[in-house]
Amino acid sequence: MNRRRRIYEGKAKILYEGPEPGTLIQHFKDDATAFNNQKHEVIDGKGVLNNRISEYIFTNLNNLGIPTHFVRRLNMREQLIREVDVIPIELVVRNVAAGSLTKRLGVEEGTQLPRSIIEFYYKNDELGDPLVSEEHITAFGWATPQELDDMMAMGIRINDFLSGLFMGVGIRLVDFKIELGRLIEGDMMRIVLADEISPDSCRLWDTKTNDKMDKDRFRQNMGGMVEAYQEVARRLGILIENDRPAGSGPVLVK
Amino acid sequence: MNRRRRIYEGKAKILYEGPEPGTLIQHFKDDATAFNNQKHEVIDGKGVLNNRISEYIFTNLNNLGIPTHFVRRLNMREQLIREVDVIPIELVVRNVAAGSLTKRLGVEEGTQLPRSIIEFYYKNDELGDPLVSEEHITAFGWATPQELDDMMAMGIRINDFLSGLFMGVGIRLVDFKIELGRLIEGDMMRIVLADEISPDSCRLWDTKTNDKMDKDRFRQNMGGMVEAYQEVARRLGILIENDRPAGSGPVLVK
Repeated sequence: MNRRRRIYEGKAKILYEGPEPGTLIQHFKDDATAFNNQKHEVIDGKGVLNNRISEYIFTNLNNLGIPTHFVRRLNMREQLIREVDVIPIELVVRNVAAGSLTKRLGVEEGTQLPRSIIEFYYKNDELGDPLVSEEHITAFGWATPQELDDMMAMGIRINDFLSGLFMGVGIRLVDFKIELGRLIEGDMMRIVLADEISPDSCRLWDTKTNDKMDKDRFRQNMGGMVEAYQEVARRLGILIENDRPAGSGPVLVK
Repeated sequence: MNRRRRIYEGKAKILYEGPEPGTLIQHFKDDATAFNNQKHEVIDGKGVLNNRISEYIFTNLNNLGIPTHFVRRLNMREQLIREVDVIPIELVVRNVAAGSLTKRLGVEEGTQLPRSIIEFYYKNDELGDPLVSEEHITAFGWATPQELDDMMAMGIRINDFLSGLFMGVGIRLVDFKIELGRLIEGDMMRIVLADEISPDSCRLWDTKTNDKMDKDRFRQNMGGMVEAYQEVARRLGILIENDRPAGSGPVLVK
């Protein structure tokens, strides 16, 4: 394999230069981090699962007319994406109280929220990704009011789709985080979904047992993280091949 | 004086039953608190100053057509106000970076903001008055979207007036906090300004020297708090009488 130029390395992913201008290769690592990088482990097989689950979700969103950066999966750990100008805001959609909301607003974990709530966090590791409001975002120019409207509309549409998708396989979508980017096409610019959607970025509870099937298993030292991610993939009907070196050919599990 | 029924006692003020239904008496104490009550002192004369400064500002806002709960000052420490249903949200308007904004968003104190920024805090001592967004406020029903619009419009108008007022007397309005309430008049309900506006609730810097003329002198153990409040009152042209027992008659200072 040629040495590719590494554009960016994050906590769980690497971005390489893509095969043609305006494209990148998004590589899923096995690294798991939490609490702003204070907790870090390598979880064997996580990257392969997230690559497949995110592929599945992004493909379906593209088909629904919700634009994403995803082009196609390349191999076990990599996908071809379109290069976008990432907006420095994480958008969180919450349906059920969990995580930071329970601490900040004193709402018990598991409480159904009166309606879905959208939150914005400023992407800045040094500041610990602080919660911000529309006012901060537009005043500091992180996104325009029109972009914010588009981002919220996309967040709501994605929540609708994912809530239905997971409900159908016995999973409650508690909340999820997305990142968005600006994609320039000719003289048009539009907001598209970027990054990934996986059990790393969603809270997913088994509808019957309330078992956590997401990264909280790692944050809370519950173990069984990869098994939970595998179960999410299995319920979504995703066949995961073994993580073999390129060229050895895919092998179906079972 | 008759024993009046105490309706509510806060950190810096007491509310008593008013002389007729729908009214209350707002009493200004000398207590100063900060950091969610962890720091507490009695600052002799502060209540008298805040009563007078707040009277001055609320009277001018009423005259400008910005509705407030203020009816009239009764004595050195008390004012007659209309009873309102206080909205559990503190609205902060910022023109210059200071206080929590500098820490949360990594902006240096004193930085002129790109534009005025409105922030909302959920009034809850137990949770430390957390920053919240419009989404939280409307989802949890603390205020309706229409009320929020009215609150923000009032915040902007009050900022315009106060910025001009203080600029005229050599003071930079860095930021301020307001509280709002619902006032029912017949079958109409409207949002009015409640609480107080004083150097307890504003950050005020001398335009030339950047000297702090507000509660930060207390928060940061700088001393000279009452002198700074007196100077604010003096520049605004407010004559402060001595704080004598009721019945002894007002005495003008100098």
